[in-house]
Order: sequence, then structure tokens, then C-alpha cells
Amino acid sequence: MPELKNDRLLRALLRQPVDVTPVWIMRQAGRYLPEYRAVREKAGDFKTLCTTPELACEVTLQPLRRFALDAAILFSDILTIPDAMGLGLHFTEGEGPRFKKPVRSMADVQALSVPDPETDLRYVMDAVRLIRRELDGRVPLIGFAGSPWTLATYMVEGGGSKDFAAIKGMLFDQPKQMHRLLDTLARAVTAYLNAQVAAGAQALMLFDTWGGVLTPRDYREFSLRYMEHIVRGLTREHEGRRVPVILFSKNGGQWLEAMADSGCDAIGIDWTTDLGNARVRVAGKVALQGNMDPSILYASPERIRGEVGTILASYGRGRGMVFNLGHGIHPQANPEKVAVVVDAVHELSRQYHEG
Amino acid sequence: MPELKNDRLLRALLRQPVDVTPVWIMRQAGRYLPEYRAVREKAGDFKTLCTTPELACEVTLQPLRRFALDAAILFSDILTIPDAMGLGLHFTEGEGPRFKKPVRSMADVQALSVPDPETDLRYVMDAVRLIRRELDGRVPLIGFAGSPWTLATYMVEGGGSKDFAAIKGMLFDQPKQMHRLLDTLARAVTAYLNAQVAAGAQALMLFDTWGGVLTPRDYREFSLRYMEHIVRGLTREHEGRRVPVILFSKNGGQWLEAMADSGCDAIGIDWTTDLGNARVRVAGKVALQGNMDPSILYASPERIRGEVGTILASYGRGRGMVFNLGHGIHPQANPEKVAVVVDAVHELSRQYHEG
Repeated sequence: MPELKNDRLLRALLRQPVDVTPVWIMRQAGRYLPEYRAVREKAGDFKTLCTTPELACEVTLQPLRRFALDAAILFSDILTIPDAMGLGLHFTEGEGPRFKKPVRSMADVQALSVPDPETDLRYVMDAVRLIRRELDGRVPLIGFAGSPWTLATYMVEGGGSKDFAAIKGMLFDQPKQMHRLLDTLARAVTAYLNAQVAAGAQALMLFDTWGGVLTPRDYREFSLRYMEHIVRGLTREHEGRRVPVILFSKNGGQWLEAMADSGCDAIGIDWTTDLGNARVRVAGKVALQGNMDPSILYASPERIRGEVGTILASYGRGRGMVFNLGHGIHPQANPEKVAVVVDAVHELSRQYHEG
Repeated sequence: MPELKNDRLLRALLRQPVDVTPVWIMRQAGRYLPEYRAVREKAGDFKTLCTTPELACEVTLQPLRRFALDAAILFSDILTIPDAMGLGLHFTEGEGPRFKKPVRSMADVQALSVPDPETDLRYVMDAVRLIRRELDGRVPLIGFAGSPWTLATYMVEGGGSKDFAAIKGMLFDQPKQMHRLLDTLARAVTAYLNAQVAAGAQALMLFDTWGGVLTPRDYREFSLRYMEHIVRGLTREHEGRRVPVILFSKNGGQWLEAMADSGCDAIGIDWTTDLGNARVRVAGKVALQGNMDPSILYASPERIRGEVGTILASYGRGRGMVFNLGHGIHPQANPEKVAVVVDAVHELSRQYHEG
């Protein structure tokens, strides 16, 4: 493997010194880019785009051609694991992901087995290998998976949900069944992420999109606990470097202290939490990643630069910060505004890393 | 006016002693009740239901016939004020509220004037008077309004929104225009709530449904500040009693300290915040209302009773708690489960108020 030319992301996640704050954007490979939409159209449907390594590689690299980003993130779907478990993932226009066979009973849970990443999810590993080769050491590649709780919500609800009636019914009345499902998923995610590392992923992120719909107690018992299991089971050294792990719970601002004790290297936070306050609360245990409101991209370039400056100042001097949005970029965002963000982060952050 | 027979809610909101913890349910007059759906169908459309005092009174009283609730809450829509401002509120099946004339420019903002409650919103005041008469002192009547920020989101977006692109564009790039709109709305809400008190409302609640989509700084500047203006302008004594004011910011768990300093009497919290921890943070300045996850109503009666007990224990002994859900009851909830909650609160809370 060629030497990594830009290792700012890895260094910042491990709270090592950097010259400027690294920046990447959640969903940076996505619908806001016309070149993405062109590939998506050529692919015909979203699932083909995800399962064809050459296309996944192409859209992963697209944002790096436009912007001075400090990381690539594997283009893939969050629901590859339940799909490989045989639940029949498909995408309906306007309604998002759906499963033909939702998981509802103990028999459904017991029927699930942990997919073998190199056979059942080979297309993902092939994409990782291809992207690493094409990146040629330019920036590190982030691998990812959904958290067990988040995967379970889709599997039990049969798709997206607003009120989580089915999974909360299971959690409240069938906690043993719920735990068994989450345990199976934790083992599946661990194997999947370790295979991504073996294939070339240089950092890992767990997306806990729906942990924030739980009470603090249930979050710890049904979401954070299984992320901790995963973190403990991950390959943390590869190619002679440490592989940092980022946890991201949307709406998780109230639980940062618990997340910081999970064994992860960094926590992603959204814009409802003040970054400076979050830094105090995690007390040097982890790096932080965030936390610009994606809606700021609707504002003028001057206002965007101002907001980047405010966020950098809020974190302050020193190690352990990765700049990102607090959630995925909106499909209707203007790509030119992304360039404003990326350039402003590099330019305005230098002062916080000098001396 | 007849004497108030059950004043637990008012006493609890003012942190005075009570025999048992009072309980009411956000959206207790609503679609989960078959008798509500019958009146709604008879009315023909939602707006007719809201604007006909006899029908609004009838659905307000329905849940009190079924459950031992400690309060009635005015049945009305959150968007009565912008409707009275002439924006052309209408309801589309499946899409929720829409405005014919969204507010986008400074000219649009300047054209808005504060409605006169007793003429432009007379149907609301007539409903309040009718409900008070029909309640006959059984329980107190809660009046309410949307917060200025929440009303503004609908007015600027032209309806509900997922990403708040239009209003955040205004907030980021046209802060003066944004402040002018919010100032007009704060004056309108103050007049509206004071008219509700004059008509007979005995407690008031401000619903800040969308304050939680802001950064902590923007929440204080664009949402909390205007709720403070309202609280300062409200009639706080009427019919020889204090009129308590409750603030509720969905996803506001990170900002309780600031909310507690707003001059309100109580804060509504959702289930993502631990009630015991919230009590410590507000340091005796305000009462707390909440915070059961509405999804618990999908669980068994035994599990629901257990959760009620956990929440009561989390708050602990003493004054200043009102039991409620952490958000509105879901339309698909089973009414029998509401009875389980209400009865469990009264039964299990007695121990926390003795001695």
C-alpha cells in the first residue's frame, strides 16, 4: 500500500497534533452532486449503485475531485447487513428502504445468522479494496456501519418509521427478544467492520441514527451497550497504524459522558450541542467531530465562513477536533457552498494549531 | 365562576403541596378517541372543528368523561394566529397544515399585524368561555399557543418542514427580518394568551415544537428570548389565583437551565431527558411536567404501570411535578392504555406526597 500523504484525520481522531483541522462531510458522496446523480441514473436504481464496486468507488471519489477534503468515506448503504441476512431490502420511490420480511417474533430473531463479510457482503469489501487502490494514499478511507439499535429499528419496523411503534413494543414487552436481536447484530457489525479494515478501511464510524429516540436508560441498555461490544471486538491496529473508531448518535448530546466511556476514539455531535461545552464534558477522553447545521449551506458564503469560525472558536486551541456537519448534507445543497466550508476550515483553523 | 374542585394541577405547577401527582396528556382530545373521530367526521373538516366553539368544547371534554384527568386543555390549532393574520391556513389530507401566502420577504413581514383576539380570534375565546362553563369547576382549563419561533417556521416554510431550509435561510442571512417577524408574533401570542385568561383559561402553555432544531446559541436568540418576552407580558393573576405558565421545547433537554430562568413556572420535558437529573438542573426554580415516551402505550398494562412507577421514582418526593407524556399521544394509541397511565399515576404517586 502507498504511504498515506494526508493523515490529518487519523491524527486528529487520535488527539495527535495537526497543522490544520481536518474536514469531511457526512454524505459527501451524494445527491447534491450532479456527477453523483449522473452515475445514479446510469446505474438505474440505488441498490445497483451500492452493490457494484466500480460505481460505489466512483461516487466515493467524486467529492474528492471537487473539494480539499481530508477523508473519503465508503459509499454504501446502512442496511447491507440486514439485506445479507435475507430480509429482502428494496427501495421505494419517496418512501425509502423497505424490507419484505420484517423481524417480529422470537422465531424471526432466532432465524437470523451473522453474514460472512467476504462472501455475503463481498461487494462491499471489493469496493473498499478498489477505493483504497484508487485513492493511492491521498487521504484515508473511512469504513462504516449502522449501530445494532439503528439496524434493528429498520428490521423490526420493516422500513423507516416516525413513531417506532413496532420496535418499542418489542423493547418494552419482549426485552429478551430485543436483546437477542441486538446481540446478533452486534456480532454481525463487528465482523463486517473488521472485514472492512482487512480490506483497507483506515478509520471506522458507527452511525446510531435512532439512538436519540430512546430514554437515557434505554439508550444505555439497548443502543450504547451494543456499540461498546462492537468497539471491544474491533481490529484496532492495521498496516502499522491505529484504526480510530467514531460513534455518532443523532440527538445524543445529553449522553456524551457515557459515550466517551465506551472505548471509542471520537464522538460525532450534532449542532444542538455546543462544541466547547461538549469538549469540557468528554474531559479529554475522546476527540470530537462536528457540528455545523447542514442548513447553514442555504446561507451566503460570508455567513458560512462566519459560522465555521464560530465553531472552530467554540472548540478552541489544541488537539482532537474533526470538522464536519452535524448530520448528512441535504440533497438540495449547493456544491459551491461545500467548497466554502472546506476552505474556511483549513484557513481559519491554522491559528488553533500553532505554537 | 364555580369554585375549582380539583386544583392539583395549579398547585403542582406552583410547587405547592398536593395529595397525589396530577396528570394530563398532551393531545388528550384527539384522534385516538373514537368519539373524537365521530365529531371530526360530523364537522366535515378539521378547520370547522377548530372554529366552531360548541364542537371544540365537546372534544375538549371527551377525555374527561373517560379518564380521571386533572386538567382540560383547550382544543384548538397551533396555527390560529397566522391564520388570523391572513396567511390562508388550510389542511391537506396527509400533508398537514399549509399556508396560501407564506412569509418570505421583509415586505411580507411588515404587512403582518397583531390580531385582536376578541374579534379576529373570537371563536377561540368563545370556546374557552363555553368550556369553562361546561367544566363547572371540575378541573382547571389550560390555554395554549405556539411559540413565536414555532409559528414562524410554519409561516416561512408555508407548512410543515423536514429541513427548515426557508426559515433557516432567513435566520442566517436576514436576522433583522427574522427578529421583526418574531417580535410581531411575540406581541400577538401575548395578546392571544391574555385574552384566553380573561375568557377563563387557568393555566397557560407555550408549545415550542421546533426550538430543538436550532443550535444552543440560536435557540436562545430566536426562540427562548421571545418566549421570555411573552412570559413577562402575561396576566399572572386572575379570579384571585395565580395563572401558571408552562414552557415546552421538544428536544430542549440540553437547555433546561436557560428555560428555568425565563420567568415561567414550569418546564415540559420529553423522555430523552432523565426527570431526576432535570430536577437537579432546574434547582427548584420551576416545576417539571413529563415525561413518558408516548410509545410506551404500545406495551402491556403491567409494563406501563412499571414505567409510570419508574418516572415517579425518578422525580422523587415532594413538590413540583405534573405527570404527562413527553410528546402528544399517537393517533393509534389504545384509549384503555391511557386509563392505565392515569390511574397508575394517582395510585403510585401518593407515597411521594405523604408526611
